[in-house]
Amino acid sequence: MHDWIDGYDERDWQTTEEGTVRYALIGLGWWTVDVAIPAIEHSDLGEVSVLVSSSTEKAERLAAENDVERGISYDQYHDGAASDAYDAVYVGTPNAFHLEYAETAAELGKAVLCEKPMEATVERAERLVEACENEVPLMIAYRMQTEPAVRRARELVESGFLGEPVSVYGANGQPLLEMNPDHDQWRLDPDLSGYGTSVMDLGIYSINTTRYLLRREPVSVASRMSSHHVAFADVPDERASSSLLLEDDVHVITTSSQRAHEDTHLKLTGTEGTIELDPAFHGEATLKLSRSAVSVEVDHGEFDAQREVREVFDYFADRVLTDAEIYPDGRHGLVDMRIIEAIHRAAEEGEPVEL
Amino acid sequence: MHDWIDGYDERDWQTTEEGTVRYALIGLGWWTVDVAIPAIEHSDLGEVSVLVSSSTEKAERLAAENDVERGISYDQYHDGAASDAYDAVYVGTPNAFHLEYAETAAELGKAVLCEKPMEATVERAERLVEACENEVPLMIAYRMQTEPAVRRARELVESGFLGEPVSVYGANGQPLLEMNPDHDQWRLDPDLSGYGTSVMDLGIYSINTTRYLLRREPVSVASRMSSHHVAFADVPDERASSSLLLEDDVHVITTSSQRAHEDTHLKLTGTEGTIELDPAFHGEATLKLSRSAVSVEVDHGEFDAQREVREVFDYFADRVLTDAEIYPDGRHGLVDMRIIEAIHRAAEEGEPVEL
Repeated sequence: MHDWIDGYDERDWQTTEEGTVRYALIGLGWWTVDVAIPAIEHSDLGEVSVLVSSSTEKAERLAAENDVERGISYDQYHDGAASDAYDAVYVGTPNAFHLEYAETAAELGKAVLCEKPMEATVERAERLVEACENEVPLMIAYRMQTEPAVRRARELVESGFLGEPVSVYGANGQPLLEMNPDHDQWRLDPDLSGYGTSVMDLGIYSINTTRYLLRREPVSVASRMSSHHVAFADVPDERASSSLLLEDDVHVITTSSQRAHEDTHLKLTGTEGTIELDPAFHGEATLKLSRSAVSVEVDHGEFDAQREVREVFDYFADRVLTDAEIYPDGRHGLVDMRIIEAIHRAAEEGEPVEL
Repeated sequence: MHDWIDGYDERDWQTTEEGTVRYALIGLGWWTVDVAIPAIEHSDLGEVSVLVSSSTEKAERLAAENDVERGISYDQYHDGAASDAYDAVYVGTPNAFHLEYAETAAELGKAVLCEKPMEATVERAERLVEACENEVPLMIAYRMQTEPAVRRARELVESGFLGEPVSVYGANGQPLLEMNPDHDQWRLDPDLSGYGTSVMDLGIYSINTTRYLLRREPVSVASRMSSHHVAFADVPDERASSSLLLEDDVHVITTSSQRAHEDTHLKLTGTEGTIELDPAFHGEATLKLSRSAVSVEVDHGEFDAQREVREVFDYFADRVLTDAEIYPDGRHGLVDMRIIEAIHRAAEEGEPVEL
C-alpha cells in the first residue's frame, strides 16, 4: 500500500528524459490556447514552436501573445511553411478537418497527435490511418489513458481486483450551451462534428476508457438518442443512452448528454469488487475502490485538465523520441469510430447492431 | 435548510398515532424472522400476533421463540384458524405463493401487505389485484417509498431541483451465493420466483424507485441478460442490463446482478442538477445532491433495513387504520410486473418492447 501511494502519480510509461519534440499546433480554439499551450510549456519533452490558424494574421498575433516562434495560416501549413521549425503536429480542429492536416503532416514527415474522435466518419478515419501508417507516428489524444487514476485502475483490473468483470456504467454529461451559447458552434454541426454531438464528444470517454481498462471490445451495441432543444436540431443525440456487450459477456451501459448538469462517472463492477472513477473525466478523476467489506477513496493532489494534457503530450513525445509503439494509435482510434457509427445506426434502426 | 435538516427523518405521510394493526406473518424466512418481526416490535402502529409456516410445529416453535401469541400452519391459515387474532397479513413467501395467501386474506376480510415483486407472473399478479380490489386494502411493500432519503429526493424532484429530467442510472447487485450458497434456493427456481432472478429481485428497486421519484412510466424497454454460473442454469438473468424510455423522453439505464460485488446506486440527472442515492437500497440510502457548482452529501443517523421495514409497516397500518388511499397499491405493483415481463421479453427477442 505504501509503495502504491508513493507511486500513484508516477509515469510508469516514461522511457526517456532526453530530447524535445517541437510542435506545430493546428486549430487555435480555447482548448488549444488555454489548456494545450500551457500544458506543453510545463511538459518535460515538448515545446510549441509554430501556431497554425485560419489567417497568418491571427496565427502571428496568438504566437506573439503566447511567446511562440512562428504563426502561419492553414494554407501556408499545407505548402510546407516553417516545416523546419517543428517535429510533430497537434491536430485540435473540428473533427472533420483532422484528415487534411494529418495528410499534410504525413507528407512532410511529421508525427501526428490527433484529438479524439479521430475524424467525422469511419471512412475519413480510415483514410487518416492509411495516410500515416508506415509513414509517421500517429497517436489519438485519449488523455484518460495517461491519467494516473485510470492507470492505477488498469493495474488493479489486470491483477484481478474485480474478479470476473460483470458490468460497467459510464456517464458523461455537460451543459454545452452554458459553456458556449453559440447555436452555430461546430459540435452542433454534423458536417464538422460527424455522426452527432454527445456520443462523439462525450460518450467516447466511457467507451474508450472501458476498452482501455478491460481490454475487451464490444461485439454488439444498442442505443437510444434524441434531441429537444432548437440548438440541437441538426444532431440526433442531444442525449443518448447505449448498451454495449463486450467480449466475455460484460454488460456496459452508458449515458451522454450535451444539455445536462455536469456529470462524469465510470464504474466497473465485478464478482469480487468495484472500481469507480467518480468524477471520472475532464481532469478531476477520483478513484474509489471496494472489495470484500472494505471501501477506499483515493484522494490525491491536483491533477487538472492541463496536467492531464501535459501527460498526453509527454507520452506522445516519449514514444516519438524513442521510436516506440503507441498504445492509442490510429487503429485503436478507428475501433472507437466504428463503435460510435454502430451506436448511431443502432439508435436509428431501433435494434442492436453487431460489430 | 435548517427546517429541511430537522425534518429529514420525519414521517410526512403519518396521519394517525392511534390504533394497532395485528399481523399474521406468512412465510418465515430469515427476512421475516430477523428483520420484519423486530421491525414491527419497534413500530408504533403494529404488532405481530400470528406466525404462519409450513407446519404447526415450526410455526409454534418460532412463535414461542419470538414471543408471538399464535403459530399456525399454511393449511390452518387457509381454513381461517386464529382469524380473530389478526387484522392484516404480511405475505413474505416466495413470489409464486403470494396469490393464494392474498386470496385467503381477501376471503377472510384481512388487509394485505405483500412483498415485491407481487407475484411470479403478470397473470397471477392480475388475479391477486382482482382478489383484493373492492374487498380489502392491498399494499406492495416497496420500502424505498417510505425511506426518508427517497422521500426527500421526491420533494426535490417535485420542486424542480433537477430542471428537466434527462437520464437515470440504477444499479442493484449482490453476491447471492455468498449470502445463501444453496443452489436450490427459490430465487433460482423460476417456478417459485417467476420470470427470473436478478430483475425480479433486484432490478425492481431501480425501476420502482425511478417511477416513484419521477412519476413517469416506461413506454419502451430493451434488455440484455445472461447466466453463467451453474447455479443459475434455470434462470436467464444472473446478470442483466436494461434501457427504459420513460414518458417525456427520460433515458433510464439499469444493471442488476445476483453474482456481483454488492453495489446499489440510483442517480437522476437533469438539465439543472443531479440527485443521487449512493448507496441506494437495502437500508443504507445516502442522498447526494448537486446543482450549480454546489455539491451536498446528506449524512444522517442510522436508518438500517429494520428501520426501513418499520416505516413500511407503519405506513401500511396508518392507511388501514384511517381507511386512506395507498400509493403503492396492487395496480401500482402490477405496472412493475408488466415492465419486468417486458424486460424479459425484450432480452429474449433481442429488440425493444413497447409498453
